[in-house]
Amino acid sequence: MTGMHPQRWYELLSKERDVVLEPEGPDDPGIDYAVVWKQPPGLLKRLPNLKVIFSIGAGVDHILADPELPDVPIVRVVAQNLTQHMVEYVAWRVLDHHRQGMLYRAQQRDKIWYEPLQPAAESVSVGIMGLGALGQAAAKTLKAIGFSINGWSRREHRMEGVRSFSGETGLTPFLNATDILVVLLPLTPATEGIIDYSVLERLRSDGPLGGPCLVNAGRGQLQRETDILRALDDGTLKEASLDVFEREPLARTSPLWVHPRVFVTPHAAATSDPAHLVQPMLAQMAAFERGEKLENLVDRKAGY
Amino acid sequence: MTGMHPQRWYELLSKERDVVLEPEGPDDPGIDYAVVWKQPPGLLKRLPNLKVIFSIGAGVDHILADPELPDVPIVRVVAQNLTQHMVEYVAWRVLDHHRQGMLYRAQQRDKIWYEPLQPAAESVSVGIMGLGALGQAAAKTLKAIGFSINGWSRREHRMEGVRSFSGETGLTPFLNATDILVVLLPLTPATEGIIDYSVLERLRSDGPLGGPCLVNAGRGQLQRETDILRALDDGTLKEASLDVFEREPLARTSPLWVHPRVFVTPHAAATSDPAHLVQPMLAQMAAFERGEKLENLVDRKAGY
Ligand SMILES: NC(=O)c1ccc[n+]([C@@H]2O[C@H](COP(=O)([O-])OP(=O)(O)OC[C@H]3O[C@@H](n4cnc5c(N)ncnc54)[C@H](OP(=O)(O)O)[C@@H]3O)[C@@H](O)[C@H]2O)c1
Ligand SMILES: NC(=O)c1ccc[n+]([C@@H]2O[C@H](COP(=O)([O-])OP(=O)(O)OC[C@H]3O[C@@H](n4cnc5c(N)ncnc54)[C@H](OP(=O)(O)O)[C@@H]3O)[C@@H](O)[C@H]2O)c1
Repeated sequence: MTGMHPQRWYELLSKERDVVLEPEGPDDPGIDYAVVWKQPPGLLKRLPNLKVIFSIGAGVDHILADPELPDVPIVRVVAQNLTQHMVEYVAWRVLDHHRQGMLYRAQQRDKIWYEPLQPAAESVSVGIMGLGALGQAAAKTLKAIGFSINGWSRREHRMEGVRSFSGETGLTPFLNATDILVVLLPLTPATEGIIDYSVLERLRSDGPLGGPCLVNAGRGQLQRETDILRALDDGTLKEASLDVFEREPLARTSPLWVHPRVFVTPHAAATSDPAHLVQPMLAQMAAFERGEKLENLVDRKAGY
Repeated sequence: MTGMHPQRWYELLSKERDVVLEPEGPDDPGIDYAVVWKQPPGLLKRLPNLKVIFSIGAGVDHILADPELPDVPIVRVVAQNLTQHMVEYVAWRVLDHHRQGMLYRAQQRDKIWYEPLQPAAESVSVGIMGLGALGQAAAKTLKAIGFSINGWSRREHRMEGVRSFSGETGLTPFLNATDILVVLLPLTPATEGIIDYSVLERLRSDGPLGGPCLVNAGRGQLQRETDILRALDDGTLKEASLDVFEREPLARTSPLWVHPRVFVTPHAAATSDPAHLVQPMLAQMAAFERGEKLENLVDRKAGY
């Protein structure tokens, strides 16, 4: 295995399996499964008996970035605990934009007792880009809170209470109808840099919040940070909550840290917790050895 | 009628009824209904034909404060629009405490990229004081987001998925099991000043958030602000979101404005919107005249 904070993963995986922490030597014939996060390129092809790659995260862009990736199945994380954390993060950020948290914090600093107009959630449209495991769960909870929901995905989806759009042709009508854009896309060749000025410009500008807001909890390379800053500064975008960045950790020199209408979190929306994720991984290994089908397989052609 | 920003109420009520804005003259025999917010004491007893008092707000402490209040039915506001706003406010504040908004904002100011441990919502107990129209709706949505919910009320209530406590004897076990205390009580002689040091001290101190938090969206006179400040400063209370205050507007000299762990909003959690509330009020007047029963009547003995 390889990963961020590998100790705890190692400890839990070791209860049932022999574990090698980041094999550095020559080809290792004893390794059947790789459990990885941003593995060094070329590492996995040195494992001649590798049968399955398990991603520590929900996204697999970090695995597919390896140009010499061996052709074995890739299993990604779909887990209630991770989904729950993402739903919390999205509901938290959407509510903070909706209930004017940035304005109220500025007012408190200046001791201003003033109540701006407050639209109700149903008059605010949250547009979710990516209606996968996380996007669907976020849609359901935001709906329960009271928001109107639009969704955008690659293929067509029908979800109760969600106005769904798909593909290239669905993008403009989706954006035009959206006040708060929530990005929960995977990073693939098709989505890289998708959150650019031209997308932000198409968001609904005359909605009830006085301008559109952006929440990105997908991947940093989905966004063009110079475009986000330009859109914030010319009034195209009202506010942004960013959990992910083109380069992480975010450089201390980035203007995003100090922008008064940007809220920064350190890629913490939904962190993979080994206490919840190792057990299902071990169960999948055992099932695989009994000849059963692997779940949550990645479509390598689609890139997610 | 009398009220805050009376113009819009006046305009909408006038579509069906003759309206007198704050009668100041002698006894006015032509008035059947009073629509009020903090009416001057003694005003209503000068209306010899008064049949019903309508409160502009959900709470009626502002009406009952009049020692010479005539003995006619009082109707208060229970309305989807108001409830929706309160649910948004409560979900927003609970999520901000849960997802460590204060910490992340401080980290952003110092450009610190650090992810603290983040418990999942189910391991956090939100305790709602007051399981009325607003408390029940808040409980339902917080449950949908994923939190564990405790409720406390005067009489016993059963609500699915909510651990319910009631009365004096239920208070300590309710507080002991609560990480985030949400106050949605009415202000009555029995609840005045209830949020004091002894209540804050009984909240769960070893919960997953590293200390208990307080959200008060009921009434300011439910709380003792010196006790809240003491509890914040001696570590009994971790953070507070206060929408209401002992005196409103909050004085510029109040230490609450500048406390780093207090979030202040200007009694804006759920503002009565005449666009949504006048129609049901007019409908009740018409129903009353047809001999039908009034809804949402206040129990004057209980005080709410
Ligand atoms: N910030 C964090 O802490 C954190 C934590 C976990 C995950 N994430 C990110 O969240 C992403 C989503 O996770 P998930 O589990 O929901 O993934 P998922 O189940 O694979 O869903 C991906 C969604 O994106 C859509 N999509 C993919 N390519 C598209 C394209 N070119 N155009 C339009 N829609 C496209 C998919 O459309 P179809 O439905 O048509 O396939 C699907 O709806 C992950 O890939 C990861 O990058 C971030
Ligand atoms: N900040 C704002 O913008 C805002 C806006 C609207 C309302 N409010 C406040 O919110 C309050 C609640 O509104 P609501 O419509 O939910 O009221 P409600 O339906 O009358 O509910 C009141 C709840 O408090 C409980 N309660 C009353 N006295 C109690 C006592 N002595 N001990 C324990 N529980 C007691 C009641 O218990 P039982 O169920 O046993 O009767 C009931 O569950 C209003 O009174 C108002 O002050 C604030």
